[in-house]
Amino acid sequence: MTAISRLIKPRSVAVIGASADLSKTAGRPVSYLLKHGFAGDIYPVNPRAENIAGLRCYPDIGSLPGVPDVGIVLLGAERAHLAVRELAARGTAAAIVLASGYTETGDEGARRQQELIEAAGSMRLLGPNTIGLVNLTDNIVLSASGALEMDDLPVGSIGVVSQSGGILGALLSRAAARGIGLSKLISTSNEVDLDLADFISELADDEATKVIALYIESVRNPATFRAAALKAAAADKPVVAFKIGRSEAGARAAVSHTGAMAGADSMYDALFKQVGIVRAQTFSDLLDIPAALASGRVLRGNRVAILTSTGGAGTLVSDSLGVSGFETPAPDAATAQSLRDLQTGSHAALDRNPIDVTLAGLQPDLLRGAIKAILASPSYDALTIIVGSSSLAMPDLMAGAIQDCMPLSDKPILAYVSPHAPEVAALLTRRGVPAFTAPESCTAALDGMLKSAHWKPASAGKTDSPTDVQTADFLAGSLDEAQAKKLFARFDVPGVREKVVTTPEQAEQAARELGGRVVLKILSSEITHKSDVGGVAVNLTAEQVGERLVTMTREVHDKAGTTPERFLVQEMVSGGTELILGMHRDALGTAIMLGMGGVTAELFKDTTLRLIGENGLSRAEALDMARELKTWPLLDGFRGRPKADVEALVSAIVAFSRMAAKMGERLVEAEINPVFVLPEGQGVRAADGVVVLKG
Amino acid sequence: MTAISRLIKPRSVAVIGASADLSKTAGRPVSYLLKHGFAGDIYPVNPRAENIAGLRCYPDIGSLPGVPDVGIVLLGAERAHLAVRELAARGTAAAIVLASGYTETGDEGARRQQELIEAAGSMRLLGPNTIGLVNLTDNIVLSASGALEMDDLPVGSIGVVSQSGGILGALLSRAAARGIGLSKLISTSNEVDLDLADFISELADDEATKVIALYIESVRNPATFRAAALKAAAADKPVVAFKIGRSEAGARAAVSHTGAMAGADSMYDALFKQVGIVRAQTFSDLLDIPAALASGRVLRGNRVAILTSTGGAGTLVSDSLGVSGFETPAPDAATAQSLRDLQTGSHAALDRNPIDVTLAGLQPDLLRGAIKAILASPSYDALTIIVGSSSLAMPDLMAGAIQDCMPLSDKPILAYVSPHAPEVAALLTRRGVPAFTAPESCTAALDGMLKSAHWKPASAGKTDSPTDVQTADFLAGSLDEAQAKKLFARFDVPGVREKVVTTPEQAEQAARELGGRVVLKILSSEITHKSDVGGVAVNLTAEQVGERLVTMTREVHDKAGTTPERFLVQEMVSGGTELILGMHRDALGTAIMLGMGGVTAELFKDTTLRLIGENGLSRAEALDMARELKTWPLLDGFRGRPKADVEALVSAIVAFSRMAAKMGERLVEAEINPVFVLPEGQGVRAADGVVVLKG
Repeated sequence: MTAISRLIKPRSVAVIGASADLSKTAGRPVSYLLKHGFAGDIYPVNPRAENIAGLRCYPDIGSLPGVPDVGIVLLGAERAHLAVRELAARGTAAAIVLASGYTETGDEGARRQQELIEAAGSMRLLGPNTIGLVNLTDNIVLSASGALEMDDLPVGSIGVVSQSGGILGALLSRAAARGIGLSKLISTSNEVDLDLADFISELADDEATKVIALYIESVRNPATFRAAALKAAAADKPVVAFKIGRSEAGARAAVSHTGAMAGADSMYDALFKQVGIVRAQTFSDLLDIPAALASGRVLRGNRVAILTSTGGAGTLVSDSLGVSGFETPAPDAATAQSLRDLQTGSHAALDRNPIDVTLAGLQPDLLRGAIKAILASPSYDALTIIVGSSSLAMPDLMAGAIQDCMPLSDKPILAYVSPHAPEVAALLTRRGVPAFTAPESCTAALDGMLKSAHWKPASAGKTDSPTDVQTADFLAGSLDEAQAKKLFARFDVPGVREKVVTTPEQAEQAARELGGRVVLKILSSEITHKSDVGGVAVNLTAEQVGERLVTMTREVHDKAGTTPERFLVQEMVSGGTELILGMHRDALGTAIMLGMGGVTAELFKDTTLRLIGENGLSRAEALDMARELKTWPLLDGFRGRPKADVEALVSAIVAFSRMAAKMGERLVEAEINPVFVLPEGQGVRAADGVVVLKG
Repeated sequence: MTAISRLIKPRSVAVIGASADLSKTAGRPVSYLLKHGFAGDIYPVNPRAENIAGLRCYPDIGSLPGVPDVGIVLLGAERAHLAVRELAARGTAAAIVLASGYTETGDEGARRQQELIEAAGSMRLLGPNTIGLVNLTDNIVLSASGALEMDDLPVGSIGVVSQSGGILGALLSRAAARGIGLSKLISTSNEVDLDLADFISELADDEATKVIALYIESVRNPATFRAAALKAAAADKPVVAFKIGRSEAGARAAVSHTGAMAGADSMYDALFKQVGIVRAQTFSDLLDIPAALASGRVLRGNRVAILTSTGGAGTLVSDSLGVSGFETPAPDAATAQSLRDLQTGSHAALDRNPIDVTLAGLQPDLLRGAIKAILASPSYDALTIIVGSSSLAMPDLMAGAIQDCMPLSDKPILAYVSPHAPEVAALLTRRGVPAFTAPESCTAALDGMLKSAHWKPASAGKTDSPTDVQTADFLAGSLDEAQAKKLFARFDVPGVREKVVTTPEQAEQAARELGGRVVLKILSSEITHKSDVGGVAVNLTAEQVGERLVTMTREVHDKAGTTPERFLVQEMVSGGTELILGMHRDALGTAIMLGMGGVTAELFKDTTLRLIGENGLSRAEALDMARELKTWPLLDGFRGRPKADVEALVSAIVAFSRMAAKMGERLVEAEINPVFVLPEGQGVRAADGVVVLKG
């Protein structure tokens, strides 16, 4: 058994600083262990007590009769490290340190945290500043939190890992009230050792866990997190994450709460997408989506039948589903006929959706028949059953009818409870029909199921990457535009045809060689906003370009206080779509950014990111990025436009990503803005670029 | 007293078809009236009973001892009209018809509905297909719904009007569980007579009602609805509406549910905005926002202090607020000092926001002091207090501390309850501190308060509209482009300079007169997509235009099978921003549509609508429209662009709206696409247009 396995399912637990007064916070761990029937050994440690709750109490860790699997340390931040050192010395598998007062409180706390880490040595550590760990599967509570006061733990198949102890407690109490069953609950908090990834990996192996829910403030180790999430995906265990720090205010609050630096929120979006994590958009989604996934049913498409006995609530759910792109088609003829055969109620609406059986339909046989007919229908991928006030009196009947039908199909079956009736919703959920009290929750749950079912791991970037590309000749610092494009070209990102010139005569000669109209730009690694200083002129003929070079020299001198000496003469590209291709690097890793160019798209922030592996991106990932842009139709023949050369764009994205992967940290900044995507068969052209190399 | 007032607060109620078995549905109205202590006369009508619940029962309506204010008709759809006719004959103020089986069920139902309307004559009618009306202020329940089974009605100041009875019941039970107090509940359903507007107007006059909440499937009478909403706004009673039919699926379901035709959802957005109705985005918002508004407090800005004793939940709320654009600034120096003076807890975080007083701060005096300091701070417009699991044991303490401070400030104070503790949330709400269990609900509530506080009625369109504009010379049908722009110009929407020509020579002559480069287009009222048939050429010199006319004639002939005979030569407009200005008309009224032009903006559906009154739009409304576009920055100097001539754009919008107002139904279709907005001082130019006039 690994140390983490021993932490999660210990055979013996020492409670350091246990109080003999079980009503006190320090009395709770022993009290909770006993109450929920911990079958192993409990060693309370307290020099001032002989017995605690009938258990022999030990004066110190040294005098324990055996080596505990887990030590729960209830001492304050000033002394916790002393107990940790002794536990480590005894060979304890893992310690849980509940105290706060570490990095989250400033420099002094950071010093104490370092002391704690050193004291633990090779012993695993959960916390500090954690509320601990609850193994509901095996009835083991390793916590002093008042949130565990409950008599019956809601046992089930959702494993929850949270970076906030308070939130973990809130999720537990909310899940319990809703009949949502949990397998393991872990609060990782300061994560001086054990972190999100450790427990995701452990839960991926845990037989009792079918779904993993994460509350994330900041991923400290993206590589292990990524690997753990992919392991869970490979084990067919969906992972759902709610992450805060979506706004600047939230990010600031999260940083001060945990002391950890966060990456950009859009990087988390990319990370989650790439490892198959379903992102919960609201806090409620963090229970709603796992509750639906825990049914083990698979949503194969977006067509939902709504079965109701009350018009209003059915309409409400239908509208919410429609807003999120779900379809609620009317029953096909055969299904409608099956429904009509069941019932001749004068006001029942059986040939539309919501399928309204009215009050008359609320009888076990009719309900069973209707559910069967809908589940058997090829027109639907899922069924949502509306529980109105009339059904409240007979929740067992309703749950029973649904349960009878469940073996007939593996389509998801959800319930929406319209009046306030938490006990009915909990009963349905407990019986295997995830029930929701907000129409938006039904939608989010189905949406999460759909995303989870449709996700596939990306094929890795090809390994035939151009390993022989030499870049040593590029010097550190900002490259000028011509050099930047030379670097891109070396990795197979084609640029516009261009020539570097210094005199009017050379400019004219260059324009003649390029043919057609040209663009004239100053060439400088210092001036990055060339347009702002009059350093760009477009649509010039060969006759005009020389004279324009002279006036440009004067204008740039006046505006920027420096006299440009070198210029670029470029072919003028027209008829293409402007995009931006760039790189973003922060705490989460290195990502490739693709965005639509132009001011309008900029206002809509139409960009997408993908984190890269060591070989960059695969073609499939690159194509996904392009398709993810809201303005993708501009590349795809929208309103009679010619289709763009998407193949060439994909090649350029892959090439750019390989450059980023190959050059690694040496590449500080890289962006092509714009890259023109020409019509099909005509390729792409990098028209301007920025590169900064590390010194 | 009006008939509606008598309906809402009757002195006598006849119950037609009352059952002597109070446990039956038909027994409920009498049972509910008695249970909640109705002080007036109750007349059960049932030929087969002598007494019901100790009350004398009457064999028919004719034998009632007096004229009832209200008759509740419990008969089925086949017989309800008979009772309605008799009630009307007796002079009853209003009847409530609960039966379903009318328009919502098809043709036969529609016939019955017509019969019902005729039977009522001048007597007011609520329903049919309604669950009735509950006057919580006066403890009068006029309903047979099982949703009213509760013993204590949650009395308060929110009036709820719903077009769905089932939803009304759900809202009642949810409000009751949450401690949210209601004044009146009305289910209007089929609205054969009394509708949303009648009750909004009545609630605007109702002293007990401070906030109005609406559940809307379809507004049947936009004019009276508009007037009633404006009346409520004038009476300082915020109106919050949740409207379904946002998606096609929802709209279809709503139509089949109520039998009413719905307008476009974006038209509802416009309508709500223009009459000051706050639109609830989720179903939960429909209680959350009114619950916050019912406090009577006014949110003056977007800076929110979060006071917490638990880090995680504070961060969660802060993040949600940040996502919606709220600010959560750190305390100013003086406030931070006041907070530090209260407490020296070693881990308290008093100089940042969330302001974390930690567990040590959970004492009445400290809490009172902190709340006082925050309310007094000029840095905050509102306070959100986090209730963590540690506060659960002392909800009274917490509520008491908050209540003590409430008289000191009129800033909104909200609570977020993190663990599952519905009774604590309800207690806080009842004590005047609206409490929420989703971070997104806190945000929605504050957002609703902000929208409500900032709304101002639009000044009416100026009456100095050009009443003398004659349009009789424009013939019915599609106008060609030149005629369309002539019509626009007559209402003072300037067009590009242009000339109609028929020969190459005339074209060249026209181009010389216009000066600069020109555009050549075919002129036809039949071919609307001129570009598709090669009927548009741009950037032509006077020398080129004649020859181009010849080739264009040939190309259009080949592509469209018709030989163009007339052409437009237009000045070429450059340097402006392209917009679209159009008109939309549906069941809700006539609206002016403003949208950003170009394919990118089209992909983002960047448009906005305003319904017009008889004088069109005011300048303020027109400016609001432009500012509401997501691409507004393109007109406002984004990225160094020249500022656009917004004054001229506003004039054009107003002029266009006056045209729509003045021409009314005769104007079937009107759109300017594109209208170029030139840099400041240079005006706007309608460059192309479509007009269809009624035959």
